[in-house]
Amino acid sequence: MQSGYDIVGVMEHNFQPRKYYYTYGPNEPAYRVKPGDTISTTTVAAGGSDREGNPIPDEMKQTIPGTVLRQSNPLTGPFYVEGAEPGDTLVVEIRDIALNRPTAYSRIPAHFGCHTEEAPGRVFLFNAPLQTRRFDWKLDRERNVGVLDLPGSRLGRVEIPLHPFLGSIGVAPRFGRVEMALTPGEYGGNMDCVETGKDSILYLPVFVRGGYLVFGDVHAAQGDGELCGVALETSSEVCVRVDVVKGKPIEWPRIEDDEWIMTACSSRPLMEAYKLAHYEMVRWLVEDYGFERYEALQLLSQVGRCRVGNVVDPRYTVVAKYPKKYLPKQ
Amino acid sequence: MQSGYDIVGVMEHNFQPRKYYYTYGPNEPAYRVKPGDTISTTTVAAGGSDREGNPIPDEMKQTIPGTVLRQSNPLTGPFYVEGAEPGDTLVVEIRDIALNRPTAYSRIPAHFGCHTEEAPGRVFLFNAPLQTRRFDWKLDRERNVGVLDLPGSRLGRVEIPLHPFLGSIGVAPRFGRVEMALTPGEYGGNMDCVETGKDSILYLPVFVRGGYLVFGDVHAAQGDGELCGVALETSSEVCVRVDVVKGKPIEWPRIEDDEWIMTACSSRPLMEAYKLAHYEMVRWLVEDYGFERYEALQLLSQVGRCRVGNVVDPRYTVVAKYPKKYLPKQ
Amino acid sequence: MQSGYDIVGVMEHNFQPRKYYYTYGPNEPAYRVKPGDTISTTTVAAGGSDREGNPIPDEMKQTIPGTVLRQSNPLTGPFYVEGAEPGDTLVVEIRDIALNRPTAYSRIPAHFGCHTEEAPGRVFLFNAPLQTRRFDWKLDRERNVGVLDLPGSRLGRVEIPLHPFLGSIGVAPRFGRVEMALTPGEYGGNMDCVETGKDSILYLPVFVRGGYLVFGDVHAAQGDGELCGVALETSSEVCVRVDVVKGKPIEWPRIEDDEWIMTACSSRPLMEAYKLAHYEMVRWLVEDYGFERYEALQLLSQVGRCRVGNVVDPRYTVVAKYPKKYLPKQ
Amino acid sequence: MQSGYDIVGVMEHNFQPRKYYYTYGPNEPAYRVKPGDTISTTTVAAGGSDREGNPIPDEMKQTIPGTVLRQSNPLTGPFYVEGAEPGDTLVVEIRDIALNRPTAYSRIPAHFGCHTEEAPGRVFLFNAPLQTRRFDWKLDRERNVGVLDLPGSRLGRVEIPLHPFLGSIGVAPRFGRVEMALTPGEYGGNMDCVETGKDSILYLPVFVRGGYLVFGDVHAAQGDGELCGVALETSSEVCVRVDVVKGKPIEWPRIEDDEWIMTACSSRPLMEAYKLAHYEMVRWLVEDYGFERYEALQLLSQVGRCRVGNVVDPRYTVVAKYPKKYLPKQ
Repeated sequence: MQSGYDIVGVMEHNFQPRKYYYTYGPNEPAYRVKPGDTISTTTVAAGGSDREGNPIPDEMKQTIPGTVLRQSNPLTGPFYVEGAEPGDTLVVEIRDIALNRPTAYSRIPAHFGCHTEEAPGRVFLFNAPLQTRRFDWKLDRERNVGVLDLPGSRLGRVEIPLHPFLGSIGVAPRFGRVEMALTPGEYGGNMDCVETGKDSILYLPVFVRGGYLVFGDVHAAQGDGELCGVALETSSEVCVRVDVVKGKPIEWPRIEDDEWIMTACSSRPLMEAYKLAHYEMVRWLVEDYGFERYEALQLLSQVGRCRVGNVVDPRYTVVAKYPKKYLPKQ
Repeated sequence: MQSGYDIVGVMEHNFQPRKYYYTYGPNEPAYRVKPGDTISTTTVAAGGSDREGNPIPDEMKQTIPGTVLRQSNPLTGPFYVEGAEPGDTLVVEIRDIALNRPTAYSRIPAHFGCHTEEAPGRVFLFNAPLQTRRFDWKLDRERNVGVLDLPGSRLGRVEIPLHPFLGSIGVAPRFGRVEMALTPGEYGGNMDCVETGKDSILYLPVFVRGGYLVFGDVHAAQGDGELCGVALETSSEVCVRVDVVKGKPIEWPRIEDDEWIMTACSSRPLMEAYKLAHYEMVRWLVEDYGFERYEALQLLSQVGRCRVGNVVDPRYTVVAKYPKKYLPKQ
Repeated sequence: MQSGYDIVGVMEHNFQPRKYYYTYGPNEPAYRVKPGDTISTTTVAAGGSDREGNPIPDEMKQTIPGTVLRQSNPLTGPFYVEGAEPGDTLVVEIRDIALNRPTAYSRIPAHFGCHTEEAPGRVFLFNAPLQTRRFDWKLDRERNVGVLDLPGSRLGRVEIPLHPFLGSIGVAPRFGRVEMALTPGEYGGNMDCVETGKDSILYLPVFVRGGYLVFGDVHAAQGDGELCGVALETSSEVCVRVDVVKGKPIEWPRIEDDEWIMTACSSRPLMEAYKLAHYEMVRWLVEDYGFERYEALQLLSQVGRCRVGNVVDPRYTVVAKYPKKYLPKQ
Repeated sequence: MQSGYDIVGVMEHNFQPRKYYYTYGPNEPAYRVKPGDTISTTTVAAGGSDREGNPIPDEMKQTIPGTVLRQSNPLTGPFYVEGAEPGDTLVVEIRDIALNRPTAYSRIPAHFGCHTEEAPGRVFLFNAPLQTRRFDWKLDRERNVGVLDLPGSRLGRVEIPLHPFLGSIGVAPRFGRVEMALTPGEYGGNMDCVETGKDSILYLPVFVRGGYLVFGDVHAAQGDGELCGVALETSSEVCVRVDVVKGKPIEWPRIEDDEWIMTACSSRPLMEAYKLAHYEMVRWLVEDYGFERYEALQLLSQVGRCRVGNVVDPRYTVVAKYPKKYLPKQ
């Protein structure tokens, strides 16, 4: 059930999903919000388990008559944002990501992740596939650490800090619908970049009226690149505030936090994602901050940082980062 | 209007499209056929022009409520093949591709083709995009040549042999729907490989009951790789015979003609498509022809040929070819 | 022992190698020739075996004090071509490649070839390497066929046509010396492209005075890409005629036969080699044949062919081919 | 002039280069040291300028008769390390990198850096090359900042923290000699990774007796990937301590600092360097720290960090990083 609480025309919505989506696109909106509104809601783990660790029931899964959907990375939404038109930018402030269960899981899948071949499908010809291996992490939310027990190993127990983020967040794409939630692109999607955590602001291009924001696939922690293909997958409570910048088109997702402005581009091969992200950053510096473009390139070359979001999805994601302290004073 | 002529339970169908599709997937079947049936029909050019050179009217274009479809490579079909089930192989004999108009066009687009960047979108940062340039070819169907007049050039007039083939042919994909007809994959699609011409046999995996065969995008001629992104694009009459091999799953399209067995795989980067196509070929040789796999690899290494279908689409297509004369006598 | 027979100032030289080289570069010239001269000589197999099938003795192997050279692809030469200066083009007409022994060998190496990883070295992490497997081919020079007996297999015996070519041919590079004969580049080298066979003409850039032509690594036959990393390796008698085009710089090897003009470029990733070869071809068409460059791109896109030389060496080689019949009449 | 000061058999050497090298390999040793010795010496900037900003004189440049060497990234050394044998690991503690002049320069070259094409050479076909642009940075060594004045720009002046590191450091390669100091590989070389700064320890494979350590190309600062191809290039005083681990072979450079163990692998395409670096890290964790390999992969996937060293050199360098705090207690 949904409810909204109005403050001077801006609403705070509690949205409880009745259906989870496996596609990015103009599906039937689950909820309509206005620019400035805040949404508090729930996401389930990439594999489909909820806060109790139970699989979501079949009647809560998106279906499309006649087709088979790949049931990974179920998405909460879509949120139709009133007034968002093609050529606008959707602003998503990630206010909170509160883990809501005491476990996460990871896996080393047999045919996924960058230690297998780059190709989709089962391409092993002369070698046996990897053994699938499951890892169950405990989430100690009080101490904000993930705990992995490895009884037979010299490590025994490993504790790592948690930094929850939305593995998947995106809008309806420019054309049609993206029928696999695993895929990132210009519309955002399964970028698996650690930068979309609490207190970051994500900018997404609006390609379709209403935007159709969806998100999910919270990772409690992840290393660069999501090497083995699976992070610390879990469910979460998520709170975002949405807004719209009218008449401001962007081509790829952009992210901002206290310290950095960032671009997140997804392509194959990896080098292409690298180049795209840095081109986008130069463009941003030139268009919004008044840099001359050779100067932008020079400064980005000397102070830029870069993170690899994932090297496992159908497109790889690279995040180019430019420090805010080297922006002109506004 | 459609009609079918029955011979011993096998039909020859004349199918006149009322709608052209921009997606691969389980769209509303335009027509139902049985294994063994023959379909004679019409395709329009990749840009949407028909045999008169007129654009197809809006009411004949596939639409999906709320979404924008990229209107390139309109597809004829979908043909629902009775009895085709997931795990079967769909057999498509390409009986005829008869060009039905006296012109084809090509273009050098500003932001497409392998002489630009590999990335999708407009990535030029420091350089101006190419100038878009259109080339109008005449099709002399009597002499089977394409004619390009270049009045200002030392070449004056160029005549090249025509070898019409289906640039796009595919079925519904494993998951969901592919919402851009430009994209090739395991389901076939816009492979742009010259091998899908008259008298070839194409094998496609059946992922969805009925298969949902579509095709179009006839190229009157094309060089390897479709370098500039656009071949000699034209409309055509097409005749295919469909059949089903029950209980025979394949992972990627396969092609056969008098001389070769071939696999066609599409991925990025290019090397991945290369590897996939050759892996598939070794698998085929091992599974269907009884080769020991090291021997298969050795022979393919010495007598195999390879063609690059396209290096311009969202996935690149490579065709690995093995000569039939080096197959065991059946 | 060497000898030369003079006809009007042009010599036909018989050159018997006393040393085989493992590097491209300005090593001590083995022999000096003049433009227009013909050289008849001998090459050994990539693994170092001569016409008797014996390994070349240690004293005939190039050594460099203090360094270890990778002893693969021994090269005959270097031939110092009088009058060849940086900025010239070296012309090598391949007059004959006459196989001189009744056997060739191939192998499936454990850590080489495109069915392993792309990386140099032993990168298998979770999978066992391939089993090394040797294949001994008989060369029936009378019938011009290679014969492989596979006693346990359904194929029994395979016979394939021979098409001998120089797997490796190159000059001194622009900078320094290339210390692994396995590597192709702008200087030619181990391109492993079937196009460098009898009656072809190879054009190589002259980077260093004298050019320092070397060649070897004859393959009696090979499929596209040299998939498993080893072709039908054998020794041969080779006859070439060298010439120099003064003041004509080229950037990459070019090849010509009766039917095609061709460019051969080597890089990684594969797509880069593809693009370079096609860029070079457009440049050639524009600079030497007076094409306007958009027209050159259009025609190459429609009538060009492309072959993958190798996908196994430290750089991959792609050959772009343009039919001579679509060149302007000279 | 060189001098050494002996403490209990271990020497501290002051080495003043008389020649700078452009190759990695067993060149004439400039100096011989013993395991445990410390070397204090000088490096010049990648472009060849010394502490006064003057170009190094021709007689101090390495020459090889008959060849042209690319005079970029002049290297100090080679240091022959007594007792270092193939199969050992060379340990290089970077004790100090003290900038010794008040300027650094950067450039945006017309044909280099990841914003041009990936290919070597001048591949622009339809677009003009970039304009070469030089940037002169001041080095304020007292405040440890680099200063760039951009008079016409809204930024006016930019100040960035300095973090000097050795852009190039390596040993003689496995085979022959690497004749371009621009190239990184298994032997180290021009990795351009910020991790080789003060207080880090670099481990290099010994391929040739004596190792033949060289280094140079100090960057006062650099962003990830060295995007435009040129960092803050300058000269420096450098102090390193060398040691040898006998009978311990490694395949690629490894780095260690207080917080991380790191592997640095160089290849093309970028994805290959990414995979190699992570494979090497798993191997390290398994072989030296007793991890089971699936566990190593799982932990690296969750806590690993990754940096792109360069995407501009003939091979790209990726650094995989594993936090020391998740190693077993020794």
